[in-house]
Amino acid sequence: MTKKANHPPIYLALIHYPVTNAHGEEVCTSITPMDLHDIARAAKTYGLTGYFVVCPVESQRKLAQRIMDHWLKGPGGELNETRKQAFEIVDLIEDLAQVQLTIKEQTGKEPRLVATSAKEGEGRISFKEFRQQLSGLQDPVLLLFGTGWGMTEELLQQAQDFLEPIRGGGDGSYNHLSVRAAVAIILDRLLGS
Amino acid sequence: MTKKANHPPIYLALIHYPVTNAHGEEVCTSITPMDLHDIARAAKTYGLTGYFVVCPVESQRKLAQRIMDHWLKGPGGELNETRKQAFEIVDLIEDLAQVQLTIKEQTGKEPRLVATSAKEGEGRISFKEFRQQLSGLQDPVLLLFGTGWGMTEELLQQAQDFLEPIRGGGDGSYNHLSVRAAVAIILDRLLGS
Repeated sequence: MTKKANHPPIYLALIHYPVTNAHGEEVCTSITPMDLHDIARAAKTYGLTGYFVVCPVESQRKLAQRIMDHWLKGPGGELNETRKQAFEIVDLIEDLAQVQLTIKEQTGKEPRLVATSAKEGEGRISFKEFRQQLSGLQDPVLLLFGTGWGMTEELLQQAQDFLEPIRGGGDGSYNHLSVRAAVAIILDRLLGS
Repeated sequence: MTKKANHPPIYLALIHYPVTNAHGEEVCTSITPMDLHDIARAAKTYGLTGYFVVCPVESQRKLAQRIMDHWLKGPGGELNETRKQAFEIVDLIEDLAQVQLTIKEQTGKEPRLVATSAKEGEGRISFKEFRQQLSGLQDPVLLLFGTGWGMTEELLQQAQDFLEPIRGGGDGSYNHLSVRAAVAIILDRLLGS
């Protein structure tokens, strides 16, 4: 039995550029194959409409497409149908502007940009509060996740909302999740049943 | 500032044998390097005492140790101190009996085995209920996660508790998270602040 989602279409973008490195410099990170698999599976499990991998380097996008095509068109999909289904919602795309355009073409509306970060900061919205707001939103939502040491300030400032960081359950002194784990936890906090 | 955990020591074991394959046959799976990284980081973030990678194949354990040693003893740890800290709680070990023995040596008590599975079934305990019970438990807890198509029935029957599967927020028709994502979500549900 399928139930209708009580929220607008939700999309996710994994940003490879512009992000920062360990020294705070603006860089472009490489696409990690496991990010394709793990985040597509989590996005599909939590009912997201689309997952955009944002990378301006064409050769990187081509390599990622080739990996996914093993499942989408090749023998992988016959062996594991669920992996094929997960990759069907993935789009490899050059920049955030193209993501916004694609969502507008699909939904007729500009997406609401929602930033995430592992760092504490001003003006963050709690997961609980944003979860409650979701059902009342009209516009599609685009959750932004950075790679490397996080998205640049310039990019973060484009977001309408900024989610609080995940705080683990330990003594609070260590908080270094992979982006794959952070995506899974945030989707569960916002959309988990 | 550090706060004391209000629960007994919690350990996690990722089981590579005995698990099943897509045809329900008993197999031994390979160690996936990303499981070392992602699960160690999640375990450390949520304050776990130890993360055991359970694999009877010595060459597999040696390869995994070599990867971790890059961070524990080599240049990786200088570049990224937090990865080193995560790997410090990882133990590569041949079977579940050795895990139980190690925990008994460390804590003086037999661990309570808690199974997880992506499949629905009888007698499952909800995340909410187990989270509430955690603070009252005296014995250390060992969370069991399977690889491949899941742990064998024989192994699952050794567990005192069996957690409910994660149900995503989609229409419920797709539920295929990676074990890395499942670990992250379950630790957050049981221990997240």
